[in-house]
Amino acid sequence: MIIVPEAAIANLVTPEASFAAVEKVFASMAAKSAYNFPVIREAIGHADALYGFKSGFDRAALNLGLKSGGYWPGNADKGLTNHQSTVFLFDADTGRCRAVVGGNLLTALRTAAAAAVSVAHLARRDAKVLGIVGAGHQAAFQLRAVAAQRPFERVVAWNRSPEKLSGLREVAEGLGLAFETVSLDDLGAQADVIVTITSSFDAILGADQVRPGTHLACMGTDTKGKQEVDAALLGRATVFTDEIAQSTTIGEAQHAIADLTLRLEDIVELGAVINGDHPGRSSDDEITLFDGTGVGLQDLAVAAAVVDLAVERGVATEVEF
Amino acid sequence: MIIVPEAAIANLVTPEASFAAVEKVFASMAAKSAYNFPVIREAIGHADALYGFKSGFDRAALNLGLKSGGYWPGNADKGLTNHQSTVFLFDADTGRCRAVVGGNLLTALRTAAAAAVSVAHLARRDAKVLGIVGAGHQAAFQLRAVAAQRPFERVVAWNRSPEKLSGLREVAEGLGLAFETVSLDDLGAQADVIVTITSSFDAILGADQVRPGTHLACMGTDTKGKQEVDAALLGRATVFTDEIAQSTTIGEAQHAIADLTLRLEDIVELGAVINGDHPGRSSDDEITLFDGTGVGLQDLAVAAAVVDLAVERGVATEVEF
Repeated sequence: MIIVPEAAIANLVTPEASFAAVEKVFASMAAKSAYNFPVIREAIGHADALYGFKSGFDRAALNLGLKSGGYWPGNADKGLTNHQSTVFLFDADTGRCRAVVGGNLLTALRTAAAAAVSVAHLARRDAKVLGIVGAGHQAAFQLRAVAAQRPFERVVAWNRSPEKLSGLREVAEGLGLAFETVSLDDLGAQADVIVTITSSFDAILGADQVRPGTHLACMGTDTKGKQEVDAALLGRATVFTDEIAQSTTIGEAQHAIADLTLRLEDIVELGAVINGDHPGRSSDDEITLFDGTGVGLQDLAVAAAVVDLAVERGVATEVEF
Repeated sequence: MIIVPEAAIANLVTPEASFAAVEKVFASMAAKSAYNFPVIREAIGHADALYGFKSGFDRAALNLGLKSGGYWPGNADKGLTNHQSTVFLFDADTGRCRAVVGGNLLTALRTAAAAAVSVAHLARRDAKVLGIVGAGHQAAFQLRAVAAQRPFERVVAWNRSPEKLSGLREVAEGLGLAFETVSLDDLGAQADVIVTITSSFDAILGADQVRPGTHLACMGTDTKGKQEVDAALLGRATVFTDEIAQSTTIGEAQHAIADLTLRLEDIVELGAVINGDHPGRSSDDEITLFDGTGVGLQDLAVAAAVVDLAVERGVATEVEF
């Protein structure tokens, strides 16, 4: 059994490798050769923790297994990350556990990679201004992954507490991008691509604040009740997602589906665009919106890439099992 | 992270330790301090495999995690066990993966332990004759675990192919018990305790073949459609189980519930007997029947016991994670 500890991940995986793994598994999902199993998510009644599993099988890549872990709000006080997860890969030919891989950094990278894949396939080619809504831990990962997809020159960012945007400014400037803290009106008026990455339970960005031709990657909504953008925006946009079942129940589309602004059959799997089965953006004026909910197959895909890299470079820890 | 490989389990865990762990977690379940999460079970469309998870949390013992694996019918040809599983324990205080434990032998031991716990709490004190229906891999584990619970003198066994009972005979004789291959009529007429451990999809043992005062542990039915005994027998017996939700849906009770022979509210959690909240057997003439469906918490309980033993004896493999 191969062990890749959390501390080894940063030296093994790049945004590019994560992008390639996530793009490939989205394509497999749309081609029906990969599917996610039902998600388990439990408030365990101890340490205020949420614990569960995301799992699936990619028959094309033979990636089988799960990510397990959750949210432990008291961890920060102990010097640990509140979000804790571990990925377990199984041998699809024998059912034996093949690898145990630290899942914390991988979760951030695969989430950022999903937004980047959506930008690569749906944003206007000439996108120059990147808008970021949110300033949490995940925002910097998003910025790094998305910035590489288009010839961006400038980042405009908004956060409820604008002073928290200093970290994002550093990342942007490190990438050679101008950075400006702006109002939501200005962000919508200037951005060609918008990434929302908050844990909001109310729409932040209004439908009228977004101009024609924008691509949005809404990455924060992964639970019933969360919401980042006005449901009316999904009515105006062409809506893409990682997995339709999650999009309509725990993703950004849950609200637009509930109030009949959006029909289930109008949501497109991003993998269909990757596979060439859907044309993607049809004009420079179209608003495209990617509802990124986060699926277990993404975790398996990036973890399998990490295991391959660890073996290739001779840094995998092998234990008798 | 602690690793306990499959090969190390046999030297670490005993039927006694498995019994203690399973008895304790059944008590926790009945006291509502432990609960199982929903079971995931998927036909993955590769290698004819069934793959999934059983998981849960015991708040009293702080055992959190899952068993993952399944059934790979082609494994035997590769020199591997068809049933493959691995147990993952998580730190309930932080959400970090605490241990990875080989789950193959543990599954056999925890299943046998459940039957043994039922015999310890429900069989007549003077039981002398033990009946076994079935001769598969699991039957010997059942025999070893159950034999220790009462002053048994003799084993009577039945199997569809009686020649396959030779292995069970060896185990019985090794335990100092007389062994006889019998008809089902004779088995029911002679046995004080009956363990059924088959993968049958039709009732094997009829209601009239079982005499008053018998305790049955029906351990083979763990899937919709499987059945080992006549539903009418559950109508005549007092029915106990590990988990009522599983008993009525994938356990032996599914049939008696469906044809209204048994009411949901008449099924008793074995843990309630262990806790003293239910008197258990009420007379020497009562038929008691334990419907053992197998829950994730059993796996976590025996795996946690193994990890404790491995640490205590200094044989645990610790890897940086």
